[in-house]
Amino acid sequence: MKVLCLAGSLRKESLNKKFAQAAAGILAQQPGVNAEYLDLKDYPMPVYDGDVESESGLPQAVKQLGAKIAEVDALVVSTPEYNGSIPGVLKNGLDWLSRDTPMSIRGKHVLLLSVTPSGIGGMRGLWHSRVPFAVLGAHVYPDMMGIPSADTSLFAEDGTIADDGYKDSLTNILEQFVSFVP
Amino acid sequence: MKVLCLAGSLRKESLNKKFAQAAAGILAQQPGVNAEYLDLKDYPMPVYDGDVESESGLPQAVKQLGAKIAEVDALVVSTPEYNGSIPGVLKNGLDWLSRDTPMSIRGKHVLLLSVTPSGIGGMRGLWHSRVPFAVLGAHVYPDMMGIPSADTSLFAEDGTIADDGYKDSLTNILEQFVSFVP
Amino acid sequence: MKVLCLAGSLRKESLNKKFAQAAAGILAQQPGVNAEYLDLKDYPMPVYDGDVESESGLPQAVKQLGAKIAEVDALVVSTPEYNGSIPGVLKNGLDWLSRDTPMSIRGKHVLLLSVTPSGIGGMRGLWHSRVPFAVLGAHVYPDMMGIPSADTSLFAEDGTIADDGYKDSLTNILEQFVSFVP
Amino acid sequence: MKVLCLAGSLRKESLNKKFAQAAAGILAQQPGVNAEYLDLKDYPMPVYDGDVESESGLPQAVKQLGAKIAEVDALVVSTPEYNGSIPGVLKNGLDWLSRDTPMSIRGKHVLLLSVTPSGIGGMRGLWHSRVPFAVLGAHVYPDMMGIPSADTSLFAEDGTIADDGYKDSLTNILEQFVSFVP
Repeated sequence: MKVLCLAGSLRKESLNKKFAQAAAGILAQQPGVNAEYLDLKDYPMPVYDGDVESESGLPQAVKQLGAKIAEVDALVVSTPEYNGSIPGVLKNGLDWLSRDTPMSIRGKHVLLLSVTPSGIGGMRGLWHSRVPFAVLGAHVYPDMMGIPSADTSLFAEDGTIADDGYKDSLTNILEQFVSFVP
Repeated sequence: MKVLCLAGSLRKESLNKKFAQAAAGILAQQPGVNAEYLDLKDYPMPVYDGDVESESGLPQAVKQLGAKIAEVDALVVSTPEYNGSIPGVLKNGLDWLSRDTPMSIRGKHVLLLSVTPSGIGGMRGLWHSRVPFAVLGAHVYPDMMGIPSADTSLFAEDGTIADDGYKDSLTNILEQFVSFVP
Repeated sequence: MKVLCLAGSLRKESLNKKFAQAAAGILAQQPGVNAEYLDLKDYPMPVYDGDVESESGLPQAVKQLGAKIAEVDALVVSTPEYNGSIPGVLKNGLDWLSRDTPMSIRGKHVLLLSVTPSGIGGMRGLWHSRVPFAVLGAHVYPDMMGIPSADTSLFAEDGTIADDGYKDSLTNILEQFVSFVP
Repeated sequence: MKVLCLAGSLRKESLNKKFAQAAAGILAQQPGVNAEYLDLKDYPMPVYDGDVESESGLPQAVKQLGAKIAEVDALVVSTPEYNGSIPGVLKNGLDWLSRDTPMSIRGKHVLLLSVTPSGIGGMRGLWHSRVPFAVLGAHVYPDMMGIPSADTSLFAEDGTIADDGYKDSLTNILEQFVSFVP
């Protein structure tokens, strides 16, 4: 089984990037799972504009990202909450990907995670983010994991989760998720 | 009262741009209402990236758009539905605007409209779009108007609504909306 | 595979009851599928009240409904849209079921359908209804089917779908759904 | 200005009932505000059933509750989160009220609050609860207040908020809310 881990954020020091990487590290240790981390910053896209698409087709980065997703069985997306909802960067990526053929998101299994310095664990963003994934035909896993009040001390120097409770929780939800993926 | 009308789309021939312009035309005829149409394409923004903000501050277009919004009492936003939810372009604009100080969206009255060639009138997109506006402190008007199964024949050559029923509906909701704005 | 079909409505002549029954009829013809229709009206429940639960435990109807659900692999729920959202009757049933142990909804596969006399196919109700099912750990199938502008002429005298296009659509989504259930 | 405060829960010792009562106490001290607390348990309703409505009309409690709401300018609703979403009891009440004529919810101003023993402050329930109120034409105030990790120690013996920080927050949001109501 192939799993692609990514974050719904571009910022280099994003906690959600670190969390997606930690998830990839845990998944890589599970038998039969091939896990890869992907940085959205390596797939730079403009804001979606139908005129751009009409004139020059899908941007190369969209085609490349779509091809990466097409290869895997599942996505683990760790996303910040921007203004109580899905980040524009993540929604914009989905909008571009939705124009690709074949449309890579359809039928994929998706696990949503969130890490945030704020107090409510990105819960509003997670629930708001489920919608476009489901509309695009992805099977969004019912359980999600949000870590509130987080900062970089959540991570050890080697990028693993420093807090044992959170490490266990993440390991558990990842195990349950991949055991659900056929 | 000042009202800014805009569309959640960049495409030149966007039905929602035409609808926002038609709304501005109707509003301009109401006594005491100063209505202006604004094209988001004139405010080009990159996808939000915290590193860009840290290094060079808010893009000029974000500051300019924020200044335009700060001047008005209300927004009329006609937005397409992208993948059953808020368009990335609109959400990305809100994400940038949310970083501006003072934050221009807070306290504004917002009316959401949608025109779409599809059959269900953009209803999923409208309801999904309410969330970030409300989180940012806008008073989103409860009633919304979506026109399904639309194409350019909805508009007369002078940009007004060609269909009398829809023209009346739009006029009514606009009148009710502006009468609610203090 | 066992599938339970039910409607989020109590009214005897509910279009959604007829639709759930038609779905059960189609499913019963698929090899390896054991489909049953259940009428919520046979499981009368009061409005949830924690005092009632503390004093007399779960109502008998809740225990019986939970036991029925525990036996199956999947649910097909055809639900009306009440006020743009999940019907209170369906939500109240879920609230009671959530207090049962073991909690029968967790891990079930759920397909949501809607039939409505109104013009937008119950779409707002369907998307709003996904949330509590997902919170309770159900795998809500991404695709849903809503039939707008419907009346009793949708159904033939024997209870099957009279319209060939809708019958095919329902058959297709049911086949895809049950092929997804492990 | 008249404000009705109520809770989306029936349980006698409900934290949300206490919170709604505390809100009424604070509001009563504001000049020009007439605040009243109402207990939903005094308005017992069955689960909505169109057959019941056809045969015997709206239950007396629904008519009485509708009449109470029709008299006021605004509602303050403190609601628990049941299964990440609106409580069935609250949604069922709205479903019944939506059948009343004139429909009392339309045009009312609504402030949503939540107190919960759980960790995320009822945020999922609050956002899910906004939808039916808005569909019914209420002006749901953008700001909401949720208190996480709460128990009865939140309240002093006289029913006021014991914690000064929370008391100030509640007072502030109530002041802003009533100053917005025309």
